[in-house]
Amino acid sequence: MKALVYHGPGRRSWEDVPDPAVKNPDDAVVRIDCVTICGTDLHILKGDVATVEPGRVLGHEAVGTVEEIGGNVRNVAVGDRVLVSCISACGRCRYCREGRYGQCLGGGGWILGHRIDGTQAERVRVPFADTSVHRLPDQVSTEDAVMLADILPTSYEVGVLAGAVRPGDTVVIVGAGPIGLAAVITARLFSPSHIVVVDPAPGRREAAAALGADVQLDPGADDVAVRVRDLTDGLGADVAVEAVGIPETFESCVELVRPGGHVANVGVHGAPATLHLETAWIRDLTITTGLVDTHTTPVLLRMLAAGQLALPGLVTHRFGLDEMQDAYDVFSRPSETGVLKVALFGADRPRPGIE
Amino acid sequence: MKALVYHGPGRRSWEDVPDPAVKNPDDAVVRIDCVTICGTDLHILKGDVATVEPGRVLGHEAVGTVEEIGGNVRNVAVGDRVLVSCISACGRCRYCREGRYGQCLGGGGWILGHRIDGTQAERVRVPFADTSVHRLPDQVSTEDAVMLADILPTSYEVGVLAGAVRPGDTVVIVGAGPIGLAAVITARLFSPSHIVVVDPAPGRREAAAALGADVQLDPGADDVAVRVRDLTDGLGADVAVEAVGIPETFESCVELVRPGGHVANVGVHGAPATLHLETAWIRDLTITTGLVDTHTTPVLLRMLAAGQLALPGLVTHRFGLDEMQDAYDVFSRPSETGVLKVALFGADRPRPGIE
Repeated sequence: MKALVYHGPGRRSWEDVPDPAVKNPDDAVVRIDCVTICGTDLHILKGDVATVEPGRVLGHEAVGTVEEIGGNVRNVAVGDRVLVSCISACGRCRYCREGRYGQCLGGGGWILGHRIDGTQAERVRVPFADTSVHRLPDQVSTEDAVMLADILPTSYEVGVLAGAVRPGDTVVIVGAGPIGLAAVITARLFSPSHIVVVDPAPGRREAAAALGADVQLDPGADDVAVRVRDLTDGLGADVAVEAVGIPETFESCVELVRPGGHVANVGVHGAPATLHLETAWIRDLTITTGLVDTHTTPVLLRMLAAGQLALPGLVTHRFGLDEMQDAYDVFSRPSETGVLKVALFGADRPRPGIE
Repeated sequence: MKALVYHGPGRRSWEDVPDPAVKNPDDAVVRIDCVTICGTDLHILKGDVATVEPGRVLGHEAVGTVEEIGGNVRNVAVGDRVLVSCISACGRCRYCREGRYGQCLGGGGWILGHRIDGTQAERVRVPFADTSVHRLPDQVSTEDAVMLADILPTSYEVGVLAGAVRPGDTVVIVGAGPIGLAAVITARLFSPSHIVVVDPAPGRREAAAALGADVQLDPGADDVAVRVRDLTDGLGADVAVEAVGIPETFESCVELVRPGGHVANVGVHGAPATLHLETAWIRDLTITTGLVDTHTTPVLLRMLAAGQLALPGLVTHRFGLDEMQDAYDVFSRPSETGVLKVALFGADRPRPGIE
């Protein structure tokens, strides 16, 4: 089959690799119907993720059709349309039994496209299939479902739930890429009074506005701290969600929240940040970090099926699966292309239309 | 009357100052029966707390007897024995109405010995008396009660409750000074499996052991991270309480907790710390900071009265009130004197005996 293979920093190719097969009785092999690219894949390609070895098939987000299952698999059958989640869960370890699947100690966690071959391919082997793939309701489109492989549960769990967004809150979301936009969508579920997005890209601010962020700020032109204080009786935001992954934006989030406020870090960081404890020690702050567990994926899928969750505008560019390299080229140049998420569809798979 | 007056960095004197009087109808004037010194007072004397102006009477922890009340005061009467808490609360602002008195917006918060004259004196004026002093049950000794003016509620609220200590947890407390020892006492209320204290001073480790810390580590001799992992299936502590206030100890706490763990910062910091987000982003950490609210002071007093909370060994040195300068000399040299907390008693006040 064809797959997108990482060959060390800066080097990727769409090439022939052996077809995956069931290796363990908990495995499923899934034919890829739709896959996307994550900002984390770009980090890998920069060489930022040392645990990814050359030769690895990348990708951890897909929807596909089960082609083969191991002898222990009960929850899905050959022919089922399933969501392949960014998190695999052994289901048996301490962390899995607490619902903290991202920290799985039994060989799961974030493994696809990281420690084992991933989803940017014609097929993928998914370990622990019973606790790692989700059978899809008919009402959920394949493209929407792919957005639930990573960005929606990540923003919801690591941003909105960890940040404890409550009705009436003022929520600042720093970074309006796919993760930040998914945070706008999921923060709205808790009826905040204001959602403020901060992003230098006009197109991303517009996308955030369309999804329900009522205030959009440009950190290069607006005095973000003053604007947030003006909205909040001079106190600061109730919750700040960091959705970029650089020290400056994290430090900005710490400054933007009120005494008693929450900073929820969602960004993937490659460098340390400065925590100004000399002012923060007295401010009753709660700062959280985390990898998604995907424990909310089932409820998010039910909300999608019920029409309670809409994801318009997240996918900006669509491709055929064999156009993987073109999709990477577009996805890696967001300021030129205006890309948010890409969707790549397998040959003769249902798709919303190629742009 | 006599009072301990701050005259700028490094300069303090026990000198005559005007007697305080009721200025506002919410005030009480309290005669000091017992007072202590806080590590924060030493910070002030180093010049670390710029908001304290020369001429200020220091001190924010005392037990005394009400001598005069303003026309609006209802909760206490002349002659009542009361705890003067480190936090004053207007009782009317947004934060007070949420029980977050430390962040009072109405002129309270930490004001005694900071923005107004404090308790290291023969008398003190306490604003917002109805919501800032606590009438003491007869069963509670004056000396024990003084420990509830700051260190017990601080360790309990900002350490144990913010850190969400649960039964079965392994709790690491970095720093076994008065705050760390009070954290040992209050962490035990939640039945952790292990309480590990980390402190370079042998006397403080012994004091922690006597109060119930089952593991005592010397950061200069023990490999703290290895010892904690050995106790926790290789994972790390459930909760780490920072009770020192320097970057190194904060950073150590972040390293010592397991994925999903909590770091509760109690220390008063004067410099920024490095937050290693490049490793922490994925570890599901919760980091909290805070000033005490003293919302638990009433329940801690009830537990003291009921004999459910014992504070043996916290007060190591006792003085007369007019020996204030000697008490400061002892308290500021802990490695020589072995001091934990000092207690200074007014002339002819009941006291456990002068050492």
